[in-house]
Amino acid sequence: MADVIKVADSSEMTLETVRDSLIREEDTIIFSLIERAKYPINVGAYDKTKTAIPECSDSLVEFIIKETEAAQAKCGRYENPEEHPFFPDGLPTSLVPAFNFPKILHPAAASINVNSTLWEVYFAQLLPLITVPGDDGNYASTAVSDLACLQALSRRIHYGKFVAEVKFKESPQEYEPAIRSQDRDALMKLLTFESVEERVKRRVAKKTMLFGQEVSLNDNCDEKKLKIDPAVVSRLYEEWVMPLTKLVEVEYLLRRLD
Amino acid sequence: MADVIKVADSSEMTLETVRDSLIREEDTIIFSLIERAKYPINVGAYDKTKTAIPECSDSLVEFIIKETEAAQAKCGRYENPEEHPFFPDGLPTSLVPAFNFPKILHPAAASINVNSTLWEVYFAQLLPLITVPGDDGNYASTAVSDLACLQALSRRIHYGKFVAEVKFKESPQEYEPAIRSQDRDALMKLLTFESVEERVKRRVAKKTMLFGQEVSLNDNCDEKKLKIDPAVVSRLYEEWVMPLTKLVEVEYLLRRLD
Repeated sequence: MADVIKVADSSEMTLETVRDSLIREEDTIIFSLIERAKYPINVGAYDKTKTAIPECSDSLVEFIIKETEAAQAKCGRYENPEEHPFFPDGLPTSLVPAFNFPKILHPAAASINVNSTLWEVYFAQLLPLITVPGDDGNYASTAVSDLACLQALSRRIHYGKFVAEVKFKESPQEYEPAIRSQDRDALMKLLTFESVEERVKRRVAKKTMLFGQEVSLNDNCDEKKLKIDPAVVSRLYEEWVMPLTKLVEVEYLLRRLD
Repeated sequence: MADVIKVADSSEMTLETVRDSLIREEDTIIFSLIERAKYPINVGAYDKTKTAIPECSDSLVEFIIKETEAAQAKCGRYENPEEHPFFPDGLPTSLVPAFNFPKILHPAAASINVNSTLWEVYFAQLLPLITVPGDDGNYASTAVSDLACLQALSRRIHYGKFVAEVKFKESPQEYEPAIRSQDRDALMKLLTFESVEERVKRRVAKKTMLFGQEVSLNDNCDEKKLKIDPAVVSRLYEEWVMPLTKLVEVEYLLRRLD
């Protein structure tokens, strides 16, 4: 086990420490998806006509996430540049003393937030793939599980800002021409490594198999009893997590010389 | 994977389905502990002198848990008899239409809540065993992780009400004499099965080893890199989770004939 948890500062963040953070975040994402899959789809959490909240036009999941983000904002969650709210408008300011988070990113980073795209993808595409039909009435717990998934995915995706910063710092000459000409396609090409992406996809599938198995004292992994399908998590990374991370990287680099 | 998630009703809850729920909850508990261990101890989340919230006498963790429980209460979380708040006083009522949760428990169950004991144990004893020293400023995220651990442990422990109900229903004659004489010790004896408890301890250690390993594509579990110590989770179950569950069972049975 780790003896100390290091706090990164701009001098010690390297491609390797960034990579370690992304790999650790995979575990968080997979745990949160497995936990969401405990509940059925539970449309009551999303359908305003089924579970109306008096004097409020939000669905239950919107209501609970807004209230939860507000409480966390008051306690300083979004002072950390790794964290991004889903409902930034009207979020209360932090009530607690400022913590001196290391200044690693270019100030333009603060304007990049792709959570609205993540929200769409999560509810419209991912959720039906990891849940079964049904309604067990646990709408609040379901919405809390959704938020855990969304926050983990959001942290992974927006960590692209740090990935981009470290890559830029390591070889600015490689990126500067494309940044100066604001060439998105060229930047995307520079940031894409297919063999690395293939390994990520295989690793998250392996983790899903290990973490989602039914463990007993007698036998080993019983694949028929996996809590979520490893292929779905590979697909999640291939179609959404890695493309959105690279989108964040590109958006960041486009502003890196501002 | 499961094709449907069954909603238990009083006729279909058996010792086996109760046991399956307890085993599934082990995974949730271990995931949440692993996630809490991502952060150092972060005393700023607990020490009012370090992180004071203006016009509030609560610590940051108390503040955020009260606000979060209030939001979840408005969305009906505590309408489910499996859920128990840590701060029940002044909790808002549910704003959403009532869900028809199956009526399985004796009404006296509603008065049993051992969360204040769990709170003490968690912060004073467990937390120092699963975290490393340090301060990374993520107090809100740390407190949210604490709440996830507390809620998972609370659900497991209070599930003792269902365990006791099912055991009572299966052989009331076994429990009635001790209930009538309000004999706690006799009830505790009836509810204790050492060989079962040994198996639980070994199973949670095995799960901690599997879920807390650093997974790579090349090799297998590297025990030196485990995220939390399996022996700590075994001890958590031995010293706190199983005794508190049995305490809930005893409290429930003492009121079962009221």
